[in-house]
Amino acid sequence: MTQLPFLRLFLPRQIPLFSPARSFFHTTAALKAAQASKKNQLTMATVNTKTGKVVDRTVLDSMLRRRLFYTPSFEIYGGVSGLYDYGPPGTALLNNIVDLWRKHFVLEEDMLEVDCTMLTPHEILKTSGHVDKFADWMCKDPKTGEIFRADHLVEEVLEARLKGDKEARGQKVVVDEEKEAKKKRKAKDAKAVKLDDALVKEYEEILAQIDNFDGPQLEQIIAKYDIRNPTTDGNLLPPVAFNLMFQTSIGPSSNMPGYLRPETAQGQFLNFQKLLEFNQQSMPFASASIGKSFRNEISPRAGLLRVREFLMAEIEHYVDPEGGKKHHRFEEVKDIEMSFLNRNVQLSGSTKTEKMTIGKAVETGMVDNETLGYFIARIQLFLLKLGVDPNKLRFRQHMANEMAHYAADCWDAELLTSYGWIECVGCADRSAYDLTVHKNKTGAPLVVREPRAEPLKVEEWQVDLDKKKFGPRFKKDGKAVAAAVEALSQELREKLAIDLEKNGKIEVDVEGVGSGKVELDQDIVKIEKRTRVENVREYTPNVIEPSFGIGRILYSMIEHVYWAREEDEARGVLSFPPVIAPTKVLIVPLSTHASFRPLLQQLMTKLRRMGISNRVDDSSASIGKRYARNDELGTPFGITVDFQSVKDNTFTLRDRDTTKQVRASEDEILQAIRSLVDGEKTWEDIRKDLPEFTGQEVD
Amino acid sequence: MTQLPFLRLFLPRQIPLFSPARSFFHTTAALKAAQASKKNQLTMATVNTKTGKVVDRTVLDSMLRRRLFYTPSFEIYGGVSGLYDYGPPGTALLNNIVDLWRKHFVLEEDMLEVDCTMLTPHEILKTSGHVDKFADWMCKDPKTGEIFRADHLVEEVLEARLKGDKEARGQKVVVDEEKEAKKKRKAKDAKAVKLDDALVKEYEEILAQIDNFDGPQLEQIIAKYDIRNPTTDGNLLPPVAFNLMFQTSIGPSSNMPGYLRPETAQGQFLNFQKLLEFNQQSMPFASASIGKSFRNEISPRAGLLRVREFLMAEIEHYVDPEGGKKHHRFEEVKDIEMSFLNRNVQLSGSTKTEKMTIGKAVETGMVDNETLGYFIARIQLFLLKLGVDPNKLRFRQHMANEMAHYAADCWDAELLTSYGWIECVGCADRSAYDLTVHKNKTGAPLVVREPRAEPLKVEEWQVDLDKKKFGPRFKKDGKAVAAAVEALSQELREKLAIDLEKNGKIEVDVEGVGSGKVELDQDIVKIEKRTRVENVREYTPNVIEPSFGIGRILYSMIEHVYWAREEDEARGVLSFPPVIAPTKVLIVPLSTHASFRPLLQQLMTKLRRMGISNRVDDSSASIGKRYARNDELGTPFGITVDFQSVKDNTFTLRDRDTTKQVRASEDEILQAIRSLVDGEKTWEDIRKDLPEFTGQEVD
Repeated sequence: MTQLPFLRLFLPRQIPLFSPARSFFHTTAALKAAQASKKNQLTMATVNTKTGKVVDRTVLDSMLRRRLFYTPSFEIYGGVSGLYDYGPPGTALLNNIVDLWRKHFVLEEDMLEVDCTMLTPHEILKTSGHVDKFADWMCKDPKTGEIFRADHLVEEVLEARLKGDKEARGQKVVVDEEKEAKKKRKAKDAKAVKLDDALVKEYEEILAQIDNFDGPQLEQIIAKYDIRNPTTDGNLLPPVAFNLMFQTSIGPSSNMPGYLRPETAQGQFLNFQKLLEFNQQSMPFASASIGKSFRNEISPRAGLLRVREFLMAEIEHYVDPEGGKKHHRFEEVKDIEMSFLNRNVQLSGSTKTEKMTIGKAVETGMVDNETLGYFIARIQLFLLKLGVDPNKLRFRQHMANEMAHYAADCWDAELLTSYGWIECVGCADRSAYDLTVHKNKTGAPLVVREPRAEPLKVEEWQVDLDKKKFGPRFKKDGKAVAAAVEALSQELREKLAIDLEKNGKIEVDVEGVGSGKVELDQDIVKIEKRTRVENVREYTPNVIEPSFGIGRILYSMIEHVYWAREEDEARGVLSFPPVIAPTKVLIVPLSTHASFRPLLQQLMTKLRRMGISNRVDDSSASIGKRYARNDELGTPFGITVDFQSVKDNTFTLRDRDTTKQVRASEDEILQAIRSLVDGEKTWEDIRKDLPEFTGQEVD
Repeated sequence: MTQLPFLRLFLPRQIPLFSPARSFFHTTAALKAAQASKKNQLTMATVNTKTGKVVDRTVLDSMLRRRLFYTPSFEIYGGVSGLYDYGPPGTALLNNIVDLWRKHFVLEEDMLEVDCTMLTPHEILKTSGHVDKFADWMCKDPKTGEIFRADHLVEEVLEARLKGDKEARGQKVVVDEEKEAKKKRKAKDAKAVKLDDALVKEYEEILAQIDNFDGPQLEQIIAKYDIRNPTTDGNLLPPVAFNLMFQTSIGPSSNMPGYLRPETAQGQFLNFQKLLEFNQQSMPFASASIGKSFRNEISPRAGLLRVREFLMAEIEHYVDPEGGKKHHRFEEVKDIEMSFLNRNVQLSGSTKTEKMTIGKAVETGMVDNETLGYFIARIQLFLLKLGVDPNKLRFRQHMANEMAHYAADCWDAELLTSYGWIECVGCADRSAYDLTVHKNKTGAPLVVREPRAEPLKVEEWQVDLDKKKFGPRFKKDGKAVAAAVEALSQELREKLAIDLEKNGKIEVDVEGVGSGKVELDQDIVKIEKRTRVENVREYTPNVIEPSFGIGRILYSMIEHVYWAREEDEARGVLSFPPVIAPTKVLIVPLSTHASFRPLLQQLMTKLRRMGISNRVDDSSASIGKRYARNDELGTPFGITVDFQSVKDNTFTLRDRDTTKQVRASEDEILQAIRSLVDGEKTWEDIRKDLPEFTGQEVD
């Protein structure tokens, strides 16, 4: 995962992995304005359901827990923040999303799916840069032992002061209630203290770019504005980097330190050579992986959106860096329209999205290349299949100072939720960075070699050593000297050729041999310009990486499909598309009457044989209550078994979203369900095909 | 996982988790004999393919790696033992097995699948017993720092001595070549030294029960027989327990130690209460979970069979301990015949299996109860669907000294491979152990409460304390004293009632209060026998746990479906059943001629739309070579596109196992493939339906 997409919540929050040095005092005014406006917009995000009601997160969350979509892990032991278990409907939803992902990406595009270990030895993550740079800054209170994430702390304290200022000025304060509730438990209430206008401006500017600061900058801010432990008012130690990887050791001797992987990507890169071979040396191709990754967050607090153990699905698409990164299926997607929030718009201080086809976006150069564009379009298609609201989806381009230094371009699919715009998929051009560092470290040829159509002729300076004389002369140092000569650059060779011509000898730097300089006479060395013919082209592929945070997608999508009926505001409805709904069919007998039982069994068995998940609810609750319960579980269809069914084997089929019913024979009902679940037909089609049923009251 | 099924290889290898103290010197002669005979049988296991050839593991393994079913993780960095990545065909196979598992168990039986975190805080695994007892014994060489698993070391050294003895006696030595090859790399060759007959017997007895020894016993053996580092002959330190869990710490302050879970079961148990609620308080029910677990093996050396990170699928079926643990669907499986190796047969020194229906096995009491029996039968059905050879499958009952102390019965599904009989599924009655320990630790009501049909009347001794006098009298100790009184057993209460009657006062033990004894007068305490009426029955359910090691099943099953054609011994064939084959259809054009391309595209698209994975091989290799390559990948069907296809849209369909072909229209071919993949038809059916094709030579 290049851009570390899963670490941003309210703002484009940034983790300093490979991030270029950021200049605190040189941020442009435009950028500040853009970030400030975004910030203001997001912390107050109110989002509406399809009926126009505001999404009440507290109500939704309580419903999701009550229906066991998810639950804090180890709750009977008090729980651990940032760790959640998925209950039966959550797990089924997760599995169905993964299944759809696999069909939409892996199967559709012949990707090479791999399953690599989570345990990863130190050396690999040292090479990839994670050991040194995959960190957040934290401050410790030396007295209480409390630990704060430095940027969160600055944010919290300055926001509290600004709030106090507004109160002192008699202005209305807009409050994020959940955030407030959490603060109240620990922090002293902000005092209503009026601040200097200049200071207010400074605070606002800091908050607007809170994600841009590194440790020393945060330290400066904490000192300058006297930021302390909000609870005790105690002084804090300067920020130190805290690596976000979970460490362990592999094997019994404790001498092999390892980590739980922070992304699935590295395992894929390490197998590049074998995957290329498996693909019969054919380029381009993609590998893919679905699995858990881990981040030891300092103080995770946003439900399923910021967790320490999470399911990722990542694609590494390997492409020739030459030839403009074309994609042979781009034609199929080029007319798809999407909402873009490009870099320049953000820099101009706006967050206004622009509708455009992906074809146009690539043509104008806004999106760097066809391959990147192809995946952006495919990501949108995937998200829409899941039930994401197209009006709450945008693709936001990373700004220059947000991108890792090796990236050519990066776009995030963001979904609008009550937490603001949430980055759910990152789509980055990761260039040749990873394959190069692993190749350099191990010497493994993580490259593509392909025959050239036309042999390439290279004019170059070549150095010959007279082996016979060379060996006896340098003895044990021979190897080092030869290697140093071999490593000479073309520029140096050219210069040395002139020296040799002129002086009859040259001097070469050889570390660790003699004085570090070695003299070579013209009887032992020869330097000539010659033509070399290359029949094979060797290159390190670039990587386009679509990276999906499945848990974030799941949660954000739930907010999109969630609503409540006007006649029953207390109960929610989750309008999952049938393909991902945890259970497809609810079977409800009119009552617990024994004559219904064989029919229930028969329906269950037949549906199962069709591979359609179903559940019987034969509890004594009213039919209406039983349906309402299953609306909250997002079950799209319901079959009611009544006394008529016993007589003539006909059943009613209910649609979750409209609550309309049709009635038909068992065969017709089952066929209708199959075509609805397969996506071949919509409920509107079924209503045309089968007679409506209005007789039985859903009480 | 109760019985720790995944820690046994050649023998019923046992890890001392909850294992009862084993008496080294009191093992019965019969058991020794049984183990010895088993041992001899297994280390020499030769297994035949369906054509009667011996499975050559070296050849098979090299094929599996060449075809990228799996590969050592981090190989370009030198690899780490016990960690493997699955490549594309391995991953697809794994996914298909998981998918089938989910259909066969979760969907079929309405199980509540959950997805719990792998990160687990210390306290939970302390309670479950894993922190204290989930360990192997290891010895360290203080000079070289080398670490040995104690039982493996004893085994290796004694076997080498016995081999030397046989050589000295001029006997033929049967050699496990792979094992030998590994030893040669490190150990000195065994010397041909003749041993005393009595000593030979002692060695053989130790080897026969090598898995039964705990640390102190191993220490004794190592000292008594002077066992040293086989490479350097250096003395070793005494065995110490090494916990097999990977440790880490959660959160930034390092004060929350945690582990990677060693089984998925604990997460399921912790959520019991919520799951029961989700199931509308209805019993029995099952939860299930599929996910990675971790064991930090000391020196794993058996490929995919003993790894540090592995995929498990576990079911926890909660059942009322009263009423004989009946199962309402037992009727459906009772006539299934299976091979049993029961406890008594093993104790009598034999490993002869017995064929019997599961109905009979439960009826005779050999299998403890219907629920256990039901799952044993369902496990067999599942394994057979995967392609397991029924002649290489047996259910082996744990012997008394093998079972954890809380288990009522335990049966392992074992598959015969070139490594011997491999335990792939454990099916244990885990009793109420886990729910009880977590309930006791946390106070969470991990119990079932159900209304009694008839209220239960319980005669019991009840203790009343006079609150008014009690409080002022004991002040701050009041709570402790009241708790101690409350905890008194019925026996004690009866005794105390008599004391009170006789002496007018009683004495109660209260830890931490005064001298540890507290006196209560008859004016403050009253003890009477009364009748209590219970309308609700409360009980802790028992757990039947089928636990699947997916990687082990995958590998063992591959050995079962592997064979080679007589005409091409160098190439293997993997006869996966279509439902789990990594790729279902190979599409091969006769040549790279451009006129085939539209047809290839058309077939690919149509198959994908049907959800059938397929791959085109348009390389320049001969058709025969391309098919052979895909035989090694286990692709069951092949479509050949030739010039006739271009003319009339007919294609040939090839069956991997028989290499026979039929020819028909595109529609007929696609329909045939769908019915083959769905398992509705067999190749024999298709051959009857469609005309055979013999024209085109598969060269």
